[in-house]
Amino acid sequence: MEEQAIQDIYPEDYAWCYGCGRLNEYGLQLKTVWDGEQTVTTYTPRKEHTAIPGFVYGGLLASLIDCHGTGSASMVLHKKNGYVIGDGAEPPRFVTASLHVDFMKPTPHGTPLKAIGMVEEIHPKKFKIMTEVYADKICCAKAEVVAVVMPETFT
Amino acid sequence: MEEQAIQDIYPEDYAWCYGCGRLNEYGLQLKTVWDGEQTVTTYTPRKEHTAIPGFVYGGLLASLIDCHGTGSASMVLHKKNGYVIGDGAEPPRFVTASLHVDFMKPTPHGTPLKAIGMVEEIHPKKFKIMTEVYADKICCAKAEVVAVVMPETFT
Repeated sequence: MEEQAIQDIYPEDYAWCYGCGRLNEYGLQLKTVWDGEQTVTTYTPRKEHTAIPGFVYGGLLASLIDCHGTGSASMVLHKKNGYVIGDGAEPPRFVTASLHVDFMKPTPHGTPLKAIGMVEEIHPKKFKIMTEVYADKICCAKAEVVAVVMPETFT
Repeated sequence: MEEQAIQDIYPEDYAWCYGCGRLNEYGLQLKTVWDGEQTVTTYTPRKEHTAIPGFVYGGLLASLIDCHGTGSASMVLHKKNGYVIGDGAEPPRFVTASLHVDFMKPTPHGTPLKAIGMVEEIHPKKFKIMTEVYADKICCAKAEVVAVVMPETFT
């Protein structure tokens, strides 16, 4: 049985994100899973996600890092709250407070990208996610996301 | 006559970017123009560019800021080199070294977004672009991009 991603169990109202909403048919449908203590999101860019031909668009990397960050924070807090993905409990949903990406190398197109994250709690409702994005063995980007628990009223 | 954007005069090989390539039919086709000393990129998100319903996806804002940054740097260096958009000279093409976005407010969907930039030269081949993104009068994001002239060989 395939492992469930955190995005598979987001409440339905929060499953429309262009980056990671399972119900957004035009979106990227990013999915984040555990790999030991790390969180991993793997995505193969579409043909049109180019910067210059042969290389991946930086905004796509930023999108991958963004949803990987909020997903990773959700996973860590869900686990801290005593739940495991698939036990029926709804996970907390996060929003991005800030996003920083250092582009290390041009990202080759045509290979899956793997975002690997480590999460650090900086406040019970605020988490920092350090992410590296790899294309095969090339580290293409290093990033830091600060994610906060989504407020009850979003406006 | 409509004012030309910097992206309208990028060399054809560099006009395939998912964010701002005029030849990428699936992309956002972002376009950046002068407004006095500031650079401006206006974009109306598609229906599917949602975070949660009613609000715009952060990765879309990051993409807008990214291409607005490289476009703005290109405009400033092109001008410094003595050219104006439309005189037939090819502008320099930039790549993003780093991207930082602070999300200030949830971004309402259904209204054009306006990225407004100020450019600072930090080295003849390296520029910093400070950008604010507005939805109507709401400042939704503040950002800083460092863009560098694209190297001759990209790999």
